[in-house]
Amino acid sequence: MLQLRPPKQSLLEMINPPMDIFPLPPLFICAPQFISKSEKRGKSSYKTRSWLSEVAEEEAMGSEQKEEKEPISTILIIIAMQKEALPLVNKFQLSEDTDPLFPKGVPWVRYHGVYRDLNVNIIWPGKDKLLGVDSVGTISASLVTYASIQALNPDLIINAGTAGGFKAKGACIGDVFLASDVAFHDRRIPIPVGKLSTGDSLDMCPHDEASIVANDAAIKDMEGAAVAYVADLLSVPPIFVKAVTDIVDGGKPTAEEFLQNLVAVTAKLDHAVTQVVDFMNGKCLSEL
Amino acid sequence: MLQLRPPKQSLLEMINPPMDIFPLPPLFICAPQFISKSEKRGKSSYKTRSWLSEVAEEEAMGSEQKEEKEPISTILIIIAMQKEALPLVNKFQLSEDTDPLFPKGVPWVRYHGVYRDLNVNIIWPGKDKLLGVDSVGTISASLVTYASIQALNPDLIINAGTAGGFKAKGACIGDVFLASDVAFHDRRIPIPVGKLSTGDSLDMCPHDEASIVANDAAIKDMEGAAVAYVADLLSVPPIFVKAVTDIVDGGKPTAEEFLQNLVAVTAKLDHAVTQVVDFMNGKCLSEL
Repeated sequence: MLQLRPPKQSLLEMINPPMDIFPLPPLFICAPQFISKSEKRGKSSYKTRSWLSEVAEEEAMGSEQKEEKEPISTILIIIAMQKEALPLVNKFQLSEDTDPLFPKGVPWVRYHGVYRDLNVNIIWPGKDKLLGVDSVGTISASLVTYASIQALNPDLIINAGTAGGFKAKGACIGDVFLASDVAFHDRRIPIPVGKLSTGDSLDMCPHDEASIVANDAAIKDMEGAAVAYVADLLSVPPIFVKAVTDIVDGGKPTAEEFLQNLVAVTAKLDHAVTQVVDFMNGKCLSEL
Repeated sequence: MLQLRPPKQSLLEMINPPMDIFPLPPLFICAPQFISKSEKRGKSSYKTRSWLSEVAEEEAMGSEQKEEKEPISTILIIIAMQKEALPLVNKFQLSEDTDPLFPKGVPWVRYHGVYRDLNVNIIWPGKDKLLGVDSVGTISASLVTYASIQALNPDLIINAGTAGGFKAKGACIGDVFLASDVAFHDRRIPIPVGKLSTGDSLDMCPHDEASIVANDAAIKDMEGAAVAYVADLLSVPPIFVKAVTDIVDGGKPTAEEFLQNLVAVTAKLDHAVTQVVDFMNGKCLSEL
């Protein structure tokens, strides 16, 4: 759905961690993405804009450029599963809200605190009231993204989570991706291509597969494109950090492979998210 | 997803209009649904609750019962397409918001005004910023439902729109349905059955078809289950009024049949919505 400008080289270098942390490939990058504030205002499409035109436009925009030069202060980390979220909650020493930020009745949980110079908010959509399982999928993701932006006015959103990977695109279990492009694959309406493909099922039916191939996706998740949609709607730049738990085009049953790898891959995901957060500490959006 | 208690007989009678308005079948009802406020508080599932236990519980709840005895005052009508919405905007003589209710940047449009004794709000999610077409589908529907409930605190939500119908279930072009049950068909995770089945595509792939058959659906739309999800989350009773523009299991291409029938069927939809609104004027939730 969204194809975004590449970040500065410094982030590319940071985001490829030492080999002893992620043997091979390390933090896998498919054209990492950031939306600058100027990019997001009054543009009908991200597809046709080049990095250079972006920079030229930024220079012509006095006040907005200034805004980008203030250090990042408040970040929002949207994580669909409790098992993915809790290690990071501990890592950043966050506390659960005692006076909930969200309307009465919703299961959404906010963990927050100060980590280095950043106000860090991890939002987990909680358990589905009817099914008793984590509220995965696009609707919960879009709702918590919307409500959290309204309540917290963050500088930046990180959507972190596990994902399926495509071996045809070189993905292996435990790879961590920074996604460059996002698209939906289970809504058969015309959409631009993307590298992270999002849909509301864990498996992949032939129609979804055709969309995913058209999207040229290397990874597949259940939230990313929804977070991107709302982030774009409300003009907050998103980053997608996705760790591969299962190979979608491999031979193993997806659910089984996912569960088998969840704990180990979540550790890699959490490590990568921490790296991203550490990197942005004290920086401005324009430095990413 | 949600299976709800039947309304009082009076509504069933009202909702079947005179034969000269809808020849045959008139306003088609598959077990019409209403959520009472008491039903929505603290319950983990709607599937196991009977009408009788509901009434007994209501009688045991003093203050909440009182609340249900106040006349319905503010209603929210969520409509995905501008062509569906505008005839009703004119019918109810509503005005577009000049001081928008929603955050800067979102394309959502609110039309509002007083019709009889009701504060009527029609919410249209507007045009998609990237694609320039109506913002159909579950994410927009869930977001505008959430944001509108937060802003307007309505007594009731009506989700009105065109839909595909299944001839195997007796649906014909121009039939207007009050849906009793809603479910998603394009997210292959375990969900209870429903009679209105919602997904993010206009067409139907074999995997979706299997889910729709499992849902025992008579009609198929692109918003209903998302509205139901958020309405349930925030404890506002929803009604679904859906008019059939195309026969999903017929021989004609869906998009072609949809466009061919859109204008004529929208007129029937608008008439049915007006009937529903007229019926609820001056009544309490408990009288529906």
